[in-house]
Amino acid sequence: MTRLTEQAAGVYVIAVTPFLPDGAIDMESCDRMVDFYLDAGASGLTVLGMMGEAPKLTVEESADVVGRILARVRGRVPVVVGVSAPGFAQIEALTNSVMDLGAAAVMVAPPGYLKTDDAIVSYYRQIAELIGDVPFVLQDFPLATNVQIAPKVIAQIVNELPTCVCLKHEDWPGLEKISYLRKEGVLDRRISILCGNGGLFLPEEMARGANGAMTGFAYPEMMIDVVRLSREGNAERARDLFDAYLPLARYELQPGLGLAVRKYTLAKRGIIAHDTLRKPGAQLSGEARLEVDLLIKRQEKRLKELN
Amino acid sequence: MTRLTEQAAGVYVIAVTPFLPDGAIDMESCDRMVDFYLDAGASGLTVLGMMGEAPKLTVEESADVVGRILARVRGRVPVVVGVSAPGFAQIEALTNSVMDLGAAAVMVAPPGYLKTDDAIVSYYRQIAELIGDVPFVLQDFPLATNVQIAPKVIAQIVNELPTCVCLKHEDWPGLEKISYLRKEGVLDRRISILCGNGGLFLPEEMARGANGAMTGFAYPEMMIDVVRLSREGNAERARDLFDAYLPLARYELQPGLGLAVRKYTLAKRGIIAHDTLRKPGAQLSGEARLEVDLLIKRQEKRLKELN
Amino acid sequence: MTRLTEQAAGVYVIAVTPFLPDGAIDMESCDRMVDFYLDAGASGLTVLGMMGEAPKLTVEESADVVGRILARVRGRVPVVVGVSAPGFAQIEALTNSVMDLGAAAVMVAPPGYLKTDDAIVSYYRQIAELIGDVPFVLQDFPLATNVQIAPKVIAQIVNELPTCVCLKHEDWPGLEKISYLRKEGVLDRRISILCGNGGLFLPEEMARGANGAMTGFAYPEMMIDVVRLSREGNAERARDLFDAYLPLARYELQPGLGLAVRKYTLAKRGIIAHDTLRKPGAQLSGEARLEVDLLIKRQEKRLKELN
Amino acid sequence: MTRLTEQAAGVYVIAVTPFLPDGAIDMESCDRMVDFYLDAGASGLTVLGMMGEAPKLTVEESADVVGRILARVRGRVPVVVGVSAPGFAQIEALTNSVMDLGAAAVMVAPPGYLKTDDAIVSYYRQIAELIGDVPFVLQDFPLATNVQIAPKVIAQIVNELPTCVCLKHEDWPGLEKISYLRKEGVLDRRISILCGNGGLFLPEEMARGANGAMTGFAYPEMMIDVVRLSREGNAERARDLFDAYLPLARYELQPGLGLAVRKYTLAKRGIIAHDTLRKPGAQLSGEARLEVDLLIKRQEKRLKELN
Repeated sequence: MTRLTEQAAGVYVIAVTPFLPDGAIDMESCDRMVDFYLDAGASGLTVLGMMGEAPKLTVEESADVVGRILARVRGRVPVVVGVSAPGFAQIEALTNSVMDLGAAAVMVAPPGYLKTDDAIVSYYRQIAELIGDVPFVLQDFPLATNVQIAPKVIAQIVNELPTCVCLKHEDWPGLEKISYLRKEGVLDRRISILCGNGGLFLPEEMARGANGAMTGFAYPEMMIDVVRLSREGNAERARDLFDAYLPLARYELQPGLGLAVRKYTLAKRGIIAHDTLRKPGAQLSGEARLEVDLLIKRQEKRLKELN
Repeated sequence: MTRLTEQAAGVYVIAVTPFLPDGAIDMESCDRMVDFYLDAGASGLTVLGMMGEAPKLTVEESADVVGRILARVRGRVPVVVGVSAPGFAQIEALTNSVMDLGAAAVMVAPPGYLKTDDAIVSYYRQIAELIGDVPFVLQDFPLATNVQIAPKVIAQIVNELPTCVCLKHEDWPGLEKISYLRKEGVLDRRISILCGNGGLFLPEEMARGANGAMTGFAYPEMMIDVVRLSREGNAERARDLFDAYLPLARYELQPGLGLAVRKYTLAKRGIIAHDTLRKPGAQLSGEARLEVDLLIKRQEKRLKELN
Repeated sequence: MTRLTEQAAGVYVIAVTPFLPDGAIDMESCDRMVDFYLDAGASGLTVLGMMGEAPKLTVEESADVVGRILARVRGRVPVVVGVSAPGFAQIEALTNSVMDLGAAAVMVAPPGYLKTDDAIVSYYRQIAELIGDVPFVLQDFPLATNVQIAPKVIAQIVNELPTCVCLKHEDWPGLEKISYLRKEGVLDRRISILCGNGGLFLPEEMARGANGAMTGFAYPEMMIDVVRLSREGNAERARDLFDAYLPLARYELQPGLGLAVRKYTLAKRGIIAHDTLRKPGAQLSGEARLEVDLLIKRQEKRLKELN
Repeated sequence: MTRLTEQAAGVYVIAVTPFLPDGAIDMESCDRMVDFYLDAGASGLTVLGMMGEAPKLTVEESADVVGRILARVRGRVPVVVGVSAPGFAQIEALTNSVMDLGAAAVMVAPPGYLKTDDAIVSYYRQIAELIGDVPFVLQDFPLATNVQIAPKVIAQIVNELPTCVCLKHEDWPGLEKISYLRKEGVLDRRISILCGNGGLFLPEEMARGANGAMTGFAYPEMMIDVVRLSREGNAERARDLFDAYLPLARYELQPGLGLAVRKYTLAKRGIIAHDTLRKPGAQLSGEARLEVDLLIKRQEKRLKELN
């Protein structure tokens, strides 16, 4: 498998983990989901992200899911695997294992106890030394990690550590961070910036210099089209599309509840078989399901009007 | 002035504090802003909210602003004043002072050290005893206060304390909280629920049983129309309007930066004279201003198509 | 192996994980440490606690350490194993595995996203259902978990879930919590209360009704003697001993740094071979080592004067 | 009044605010407390600290307390006044007011939203500009402020801002921070380092290069003697004294409860008339009072043995 590079662009969909109603992993849905993402035009996949249900898998299950997804992808697109863990021993073990299986890169978020600029830089320096020549994605997601990485700290990490090839940008607000990193002279080499937050700021992020998105949304085709249109210079059309999906995207971004919304929608679309969340996990109420149904109905109408 | 009651409904706009370029309070803009909100159909105003710039005013300035706004309102609509403070002495002093000036109610958020159900109930019990017969708004805004108030704790406070007449609902996600509080048998009396978060979930909140909004957005007419249409049973039209404003509303909800966006827009609309924020405060970059300009232009186009 | 019951008392030492200078687990030191703790009079051991270096072990290493310790203990005292994890699948797998190896109970801390009384009760209800008849220790450590468990919530959990046999009490301040739980009529059955925080409040905790300690300190003999003397009614002598060790105990309780102090002292005492901490981990400076040396010297002098 | 300089040394006692049983300020106790602190040998006083009850005073009450204390001190020692506030307008107003009354310096803690090195430096740069030539104390208390200031950030602030004359050092653990700041070449000029945390690490802090303490403890004579003896090179005797007071000092450092312990002890000693805490505030239970009584009795016995 070729490895992730600074040229990574487009949409790297954060894959959900499909479960059967009894909580076991639903490998068939896993396959169907991979096919769906690739058919929709995803440029890559990201698995074992920290905000999904990956932390609820046992180590064996994690390996099984990664293996199954890599097998299904068959090298058609790069697969990034989240390896954040409290200790270096685990990060090293997981990195070795997934790279052997064919992953293209690993993604590392800063642990919550890092509280100063130097502590953050020093952590990534140790990570880079630990994983050797494996390319890594720096995950910048303060709302979840409680670590605020200053723009110039990102620059220092990138400039010092050549294996840092991509920033998963998920600060909120974070637009100025992109502009800063794209300013002449800030980075020694142009790395890939892929944005998060369910795509909720994707038009602005693309205009500021992002290369795409690395996040989840039950309609990845929206993100794929917005990124493509933005790169083709068709920003107005990108925004029209974005606006059509925005009411649902907003609804899906509710913290904690969002994953239940996403799985309900993916199941409704027939992409995964069940909307089961593993315990402990938020339940979607009957009223919430009706709200999603209505948002989808109105979304379809708007999309028809657009075409 | 008549006092706030459980019948409070419609939109209570959270007023910004206008400043002159040198940081002094801009009282003329204050007047113009009040006129604008009332002309737009606001059912009430809320001043000295905790997330705005009220904490940056000296005590004398706070009194001046409240006095000026109340003088301009002249009793046409109820004015709610935020009085959250670390100590009861301050809360009592501020409450007495603003009620004398003609406020309709005070709003109290829970201090961040309240960590258990009983601690929260006990705090509001003490507040209610402290302020006597003054009606109060319970501000439930976990993202800012770090206090998570369980739905049944809200019910307990309401059922026990008759002066709690309104919930400023700003949990996120918070839709199930509204549904719970509107269930038969949960509350002994139906209080007012006015929602926050910049109106970003207003259509769903109204459908769940909210009575309106108490929040800020540079286009309060959106919230006013969505609430009115929802109450008239015209939910589809309400959503059409909501969707038209959503791209900007989303942009304005960026934490920290949102107030700068709101002031920039209000100044652009001629409602306040300057978009000055008092130090320390986030600055809006040139790129951000262009993004807002574009969002407004597209919004105007969509609104024209709607009519 | 007999299982942990409500009668658990004395000192359950939280075992450190000894490493070789290269970061590999030092199994020989592991054995020596077990022997030392049991010879000193520990009533039990606790392994894989959340604040030590357990989170830095891979799953295989965790199993190895637990297996080695259980093999060395040979059923002489109960061994409690920490199984806190983000998902139930992991908690279940780890519980099954360690109970098969001969553990006496598991310990479960509340995940940080539990923010209301009911959420906490509901979580432990699900845990109890998940692990069946395995006895568990409720770990109440707000400084580390960010979850504040009200005294009455602990009572509700204990009264409702018969497999909750012990409270690892580590709230700070937490003395009133013990008094509350020991009040007539609060608990349906008297469970074991073992205290944490490095023993820094042990004399008061014993007087309030605790049954002992479950924590770490490089001189577990202090805790063992204080608990024994307190239970024998010799509180003055217990306090004399406690005071003699307090300057070092205070120094060892420094957050983050404490484990380095403990390992340095254990190595200095010849109990473990090296004071290595796995990366990422705090380093003890030369000055800090000298400070510990001095504290130990003065401690020895005071102990001599006591006898 | 002469102003605070980099030569500040000794113990600056953080004054409590004495209240009458009905919650009104007890000005007579205020006077007696000032006399007691100065008679005991305090080198200065600090008022309106952020962790005490100052936040519970109205603005008028704060001015009254500061005025009364300054009047009683009559310039015999420098008085530092805490002026931390959400906005610059308040900080400026309070600074002007207390400097006019005769304060020697103001103390400023970083607001909790500062999350990166540059944000912290920039905040103090603005503060220094705001208050002109008024000397200020940088309050570094991460447990309370949630802001972690890296040692090199302190150095940058000191080196850049000549009016920063003193560090109130209250990081925990924080010993390495002192050593760093005392290393050759780190600071352009030697500022005063006065330590907090109730004096719980005072012997080590003095050995690392601190100039004294700025904190509260119901027996300030302990801190005064420890600092004096340490500076006279009599570290062993300093530690003997420290150890004699440590069991109570440890008890008084309980977060939230500590102030109730301190006031109870000060009242018991006849220094203030009542141990009243203003609402909302923690109550000391009967059991806790007995615990303090016992600790004091044992402390007196140890002190007698020492002499």
